[in-house]
Formats: sequence, structure tokens, C-alpha cells
Amino acid sequence: MTSLVIEKLEQQGHRVILEDLHKSRFQPVLSAKERETYYSESYDASAVSAYVKRLLEAEGLVLLFPTWWFSFPAILKGWFDRVWGPGITYDHADDYGPIKPRLNNLKQVLAITTLGASWWVDRLVMRQPVKKVIKTAILGACARNASFSYLSLYQCEALKADEIKGFENRIENALSGWK
Amino acid sequence: MTSLVIEKLEQQGHRVILEDLHKSRFQPVLSAKERETYYSESYDASAVSAYVKRLLEAEGLVLLFPTWWFSFPAILKGWFDRVWGPGITYDHADDYGPIKPRLNNLKQVLAITTLGASWWVDRLVMRQPVKKVIKTAILGACARNASFSYLSLYQCEALKADEIKGFENRIENALSGWK
Repeated sequence: MTSLVIEKLEQQGHRVILEDLHKSRFQPVLSAKERETYYSESYDASAVSAYVKRLLEAEGLVLLFPTWWFSFPAILKGWFDRVWGPGITYDHADDYGPIKPRLNNLKQVLAITTLGASWWVDRLVMRQPVKKVIKTAILGACARNASFSYLSLYQCEALKADEIKGFENRIENALSGWK
Repeated sequence: MTSLVIEKLEQQGHRVILEDLHKSRFQPVLSAKERETYYSESYDASAVSAYVKRLLEAEGLVLLFPTWWFSFPAILKGWFDRVWGPGITYDHADDYGPIKPRLNNLKQVLAITTLGASWWVDRLVMRQPVKKVIKTAILGACARNASFSYLSLYQCEALKADEIKGFENRIENALSGWK
């Protein structure tokens, strides 16, 4: 799916940067220094500065990940914990009220995920917790200008070829609208 | 709060083992070997075997963590991703249907968490995604015999002493019922 996304976006004239957290051996644990400076004048994100730079430059973001336990894999959660810090994607409010968005460059976000579960467990029982976290808690707080779409490939442990093809079509359709 | 939990449980005659993921430098990223063997005959959890052993022996589990972005910190998510694997806390179903519980030793679980957010954002807007993930997705699938309680300390960035004291009392009350 990664190559499909890249190909489709490049066809439309976008410059695509692949952020492969496994390949770059991203360390997801917030460091002691990051925790110490989290509420200081200046959050010290120097250990993840290359990730911060790429995020701040992005006008679009495609998140491609498996859903495990109805949540992010740890490596992706750590990217949010460390890279989406204060002074980068948002600012603390003076009174510790709701945080203030800063990621104004980001215009469109597509999340693509796989789940072992069936659609009705995700939607009716669990109420799509990952979608809600990205849409409301993260983008709603940091990137209010961004459009957001979410594509879920359910029961991914036993897929037929036409189900995969159908999902790829949905990805292509979702990206077709990207400016 | 850690020492409060330990003290309270030891007073009641429990043997308490502190699993400090930061102190033991737990690596939260599912390894290539773990991913490769996830659907094989035998999931290879040898790299986290000490964590597996402690989990399997536990009759009670207190999870103590900050909520970040309405989800687990990466280090705790990785503990679920790597340690709560097939053949340990559950078994795959033959038809890739719902997984089958295995963590039958676990009788009681208390999750204690802090949030920057206010109670109404967590409950009315977000619908307590972390609570739902632990209760329904994780314990509901792996440890159906376990009782479950969830304590949230809201607006934790600016707390008064009496609010902390009140929360400590809630922790003590929750643990009082532990057998």
C-alpha cells in the first residue's frame, strides 16, 4: 500500500517523503530530557529534529499503520508523543486550558489502517477509538485547517484478492481529491 | 502514587512486584522476529520472557500511567503489543474469528491515570477511549475473569493539594476491595 500511495501522489505532482519509522529505527519512548522540558519555555525536541522538520513542512500527511488492540502500534504512538510536542504542533495555554493549534501548514490528512476485527466491532462496540483520537484529540487540537479521511481494512487476517483490490481503489479515490 | 499502591497492597498481605518499564528500559517496538512468528505455531516472545512470566503469575494488575493524546504512552502500548501476545494472554481462533482468552489467572485490574483534559472532554466528547480499549478490547478478549476499575485524575497540570489527596483516597478505596 505504501508504494500505491507514493505512486498516486507523485502522479498528481506532489513531492512525497516516506517516513518509515521502522527503517529509521525511531525510538518511541519520550526521553527524560523531553519530559523535563515539556512544560518549560522551550521543549527540547533536538533528538527528533529531523522528524519535526519534515512534519512542519508537510502540507499533506498519509498515516499508514496496523491497528493493534484498537490503538496505534507503539512506534507510531511514540511519534505523536515525541514529535507532536509543544512549540511544534501546538502551544500550551497559559492557564493549562485547551492547547492552541500551531500546525497550520497541514491541509489534508488520510489515515489508512488494517484491523483483525470486523467492522461492527470497531464501529458499534468500540466506536472507532483510533479515528476519534486522530480526528478530535490530535488534529482537532493541532491542525484545525486539515481535512481528514479514514480508511479501515477490516478482518485483514484473511483477505481475498478482490477485497484488497477494492481497498486499494478506496485509497486511490481518497487521494484523487488531494490538492 | 506508586508507593501508595505498593504500601496499601502490602498492608493487605499481597506480594507486590513493581514493573517499571522506564527503569528496565523496556523497548516498545514489536521486533521483526516477533512479527514474523506472530501467526506461527509459536509466537517467539523470548526477548520479553521476564515480562511474560511476571504477567502470567499475576493475580492482580495495577496499571499506573499518564494518558497522552487520549491514548497510552508508547512504552505502555509496546508492553501490550509485545507481551500480550498469542499463546500468552490469548489464542488465535482457527478461523481468524474473535481471539480466545488465556489469562485466566488474572482476577483484578485497576487502571490509574492522569489527564491534562477535563472530565467532560474525556467522557462526553472522547467517550473514554483508553478505558474502553483496556476493558473491552484487551481484558474482554484475554482476561474475562478479571474485575476492572478505572480511576482518572483530570486537569492534572494544575492540581491543588486537596485534589491530589482526594484522588489518593480513591486509589486506597479501590484497592481495599482487593482479595
